[in-house]
Amino acid sequence: MSKTELETGDQLSVRFDENGLTPAIVQDAQTGEILMMGWMNEAALQQTLETRKATFYSRSRRKMWVKGESSGHIQEVLEARVDCDQDTIVLRCKSHGPCCHVGYNSCFYRRIDMDGLRLETVAQRVFDPAAVYKK
Amino acid sequence: MSKTELETGDQLSVRFDENGLTPAIVQDAQTGEILMMGWMNEAALQQTLETRKATFYSRSRRKMWVKGESSGHIQEVLEARVDCDQDTIVLRCKSHGPCCHVGYNSCFYRRIDMDGLRLETVAQRVFDPAAVYKK
Repeated sequence: MSKTELETGDQLSVRFDENGLTPAIVQDAQTGEILMMGWMNEAALQQTLETRKATFYSRSRRKMWVKGESSGHIQEVLEARVDCDQDTIVLRCKSHGPCCHVGYNSCFYRRIDMDGLRLETVAQRVFDPAAVYKK
Repeated sequence: MSKTELETGDQLSVRFDENGLTPAIVQDAQTGEILMMGWMNEAALQQTLETRKATFYSRSRRKMWVKGESSGHIQEVLEARVDCDQDTIVLRCKSHGPCCHVGYNSCFYRRIDMDGLRLETVAQRVFDPAAVYKK
């Protein structure tokens, strides 16, 4: 596929990396908040588009996982987008519960102090992980 | 650094991947629109935080580049965030011009038709690349 076709065509042709993965960004469709970034292999992308539930590939566990399969906090995909060179996905989602396993709505709950390079938590915890992720 | 320190501490300790890179998502601070995703090595992250201009590492050209160095369309970083396990960055930016080299405000100008797997352009072109990227 030529660069022009890739960038301006209507054919989905995701360019997975050398490990067969592509980054997928989850955004709250209503608020615009960026909730998380996960990795997808081709099967995870296909399952996401078919089921409309955000599904990723875990590099550490080496298997697919459905966001919310443990917590019940699924991300329902209302719209999916691809970028110009088709190597990154954005999922605009309806959240069914907070996104981050640490207990926040978004995984990006810490601001980088650009002068001191320290982190400052700028969000409120909305659930207790110990109560949600039962052993 | 322990998992708890990584997730809840105040120390910036970005976990770059096996190629020394981490994804960085650029978001319009005013509208919440996701504009692009780029890769950063440690030097690009450091330069970004110091200069407040989004700076990336090009995997194909194997060098750092400042977003907007050709077009003038820089991304001024108003806030930087890191995710729970410190392997992804979000930059909340003020755009000084459209972000995407194809001519759109955002690189995510195409929606994936989840039934037919075709792409549909859902944004308007805002500039002519040929006029901006002069040879």
